[in-house]
Amino acid sequence: MSNIITVAAAQLGPIQKDEGRDVAVARMVRLLERAHQRGAQVVVFPELALTTFFPRWYHEDLNEVDHWYESELPSAATQPLFDAIKKLGLTVYLGYAELAFEADETGAVRKRRFNTSVVIAPSGEIIFKYRKVHMPGHVEYAPARKVQHLEKRYFEIGNLGFPVVRAPVGGTPVNMGMMLCNDRRWPESWRSMGLQQVELVMLGYNTPSLNMENKGFEAHHLRVFHSELSIQAGCYQNATFAVATAKAGNEDGHELFGHSVIVNPQGEVMARTTTWDDALAVADCDLEMCRLGRTTIFNFALHRRTEAYGRITEQTGSVEPPVWTSREGSL
Amino acid sequence: MSNIITVAAAQLGPIQKDEGRDVAVARMVRLLERAHQRGAQVVVFPELALTTFFPRWYHEDLNEVDHWYESELPSAATQPLFDAIKKLGLTVYLGYAELAFEADETGAVRKRRFNTSVVIAPSGEIIFKYRKVHMPGHVEYAPARKVQHLEKRYFEIGNLGFPVVRAPVGGTPVNMGMMLCNDRRWPESWRSMGLQQVELVMLGYNTPSLNMENKGFEAHHLRVFHSELSIQAGCYQNATFAVATAKAGNEDGHELFGHSVIVNPQGEVMARTTTWDDALAVADCDLEMCRLGRTTIFNFALHRRTEAYGRITEQTGSVEPPVWTSREGSL
Repeated sequence: MSNIITVAAAQLGPIQKDEGRDVAVARMVRLLERAHQRGAQVVVFPELALTTFFPRWYHEDLNEVDHWYESELPSAATQPLFDAIKKLGLTVYLGYAELAFEADETGAVRKRRFNTSVVIAPSGEIIFKYRKVHMPGHVEYAPARKVQHLEKRYFEIGNLGFPVVRAPVGGTPVNMGMMLCNDRRWPESWRSMGLQQVELVMLGYNTPSLNMENKGFEAHHLRVFHSELSIQAGCYQNATFAVATAKAGNEDGHELFGHSVIVNPQGEVMARTTTWDDALAVADCDLEMCRLGRTTIFNFALHRRTEAYGRITEQTGSVEPPVWTSREGSL
Repeated sequence: MSNIITVAAAQLGPIQKDEGRDVAVARMVRLLERAHQRGAQVVVFPELALTTFFPRWYHEDLNEVDHWYESELPSAATQPLFDAIKKLGLTVYLGYAELAFEADETGAVRKRRFNTSVVIAPSGEIIFKYRKVHMPGHVEYAPARKVQHLEKRYFEIGNLGFPVVRAPVGGTPVNMGMMLCNDRRWPESWRSMGLQQVELVMLGYNTPSLNMENKGFEAHHLRVFHSELSIQAGCYQNATFAVATAKAGNEDGHELFGHSVIVNPQGEVMARTTTWDDALAVADCDLEMCRLGRTTIFNFALHRRTEAYGRITEQTGSVEPPVWTSREGSL
């Protein structure tokens, strides 16, 4: 049995605010067909792949944004995607805004909103679901910002942890994990999945070309560097492959930087999209490559020291360190 | 008051097994003088800076290795280093093998061995101490290995956590943290210090040019890449500067890869040594640069989600994920 699987990042160019799901879904079906032609078995779409990145638009009344959410999968609008998945025999990661009617922590069933991704099997079944944990942005309209980033308004914090599931791709079992966008910058996301022997992290993102908080200088080119740096370090330090797929280009006047990448367990970029349009990056991943890190430098059982990690789970924000003063007075 | 401090990585070329501390100390004093001439206020030496990297040599009787450890600082042999520190007014990170007589977890006072670093103030006082937490290597002689790596034999696991201390450099208070070698590959080390608002991570290392465990392919050039990747990601994700200093070159027939670097809070390499000999890299660090990450993307209080991080402290080794099976049977 081969341990090589072929994976694709299926980047989407911009989806404008006034474009319907039919436009996005038709483009995604074409990408699935092209990925299949290139031998891909796993295809990863971006975060919020079916619509524009709507958290940049402020609405006081949350009910006004309901049309950007999916309350079922498949729906009439997304059925063509599921049909293509079944026809082509693909395993597909899909990011979307989820509207759920389910119990909250008080037990009350209510309308809940999550930034969600699923992995869909070649049978059309949902293998597993992830809800974004690291929610960037803010809740209220921020007058100082040129562009709003209202993810914290439009989505609750994900409540499914960082799940990893072992599922077959062709005849090969693969330990699959998911992230969404900002999760990739947080080593906690990667480590939570590394501790479950993840071999393939799938993640979609919508990342603007500038840090929009206007609190200091961050050059354009560093934005791409930071994205790749975080993904490469996450892969290396957890001995996993990753497929990271962007929504790219000028969406409603706002630039998203693209640069979808496939990264190996050594942290090397194997493939990268270099347009800001619908585009594929495809690579063969030998899952055997996950073994080296896992059995040597990053043999967690041998080398991790949880007794020294207390702050990571006991503390949310940072604290000031103690002050040292020379016995000899001022230095 | 300026927020700019000038820091130096003071790389050491090889120290051979038969060379005494006098040789190392004399070279280190010259590096301190040159660093001072170049305006450095903080100088970072490698891990185990006073001797060869002795954990590559096996001894059945631990008492035979005592001569590689320091039981006091300063000692007669290291006094010239402290004299130069005071004369030049420098703040200095020094890595060394520590022999301590202190109580263990049972309360019994005994001889204990740690892989240790200290920061020494311009007054000659020890500001604080760190003992290496992420100990690589093995305890017993490993016949399959071409080179032994007996750190787990010769050192106990560090018992001081990841301390950060606020201490003045010139007139500027700096939140200082320390690591040693392998610690830099572990995001837990960086995050533990990021949660204490670290602004300057000092770390020394001795890293061979090959993964010596012979369990798979890891190309020469990836070794340097992995070192820099881990340091750059750690700095970016915790909004801190780092000075990472190597012992470099051919030490007793074994190649150490050098490439000491100074990295800024954006993860950019500001300076790098490119020889395998005694060498300096110097850079001006504007501590104000730590603010951007800390108040935007990596505002921990706003964005970290400790309820999703349980595995990081509850689990040491990895566990197998659950297996998914299609309702439709084999895919």
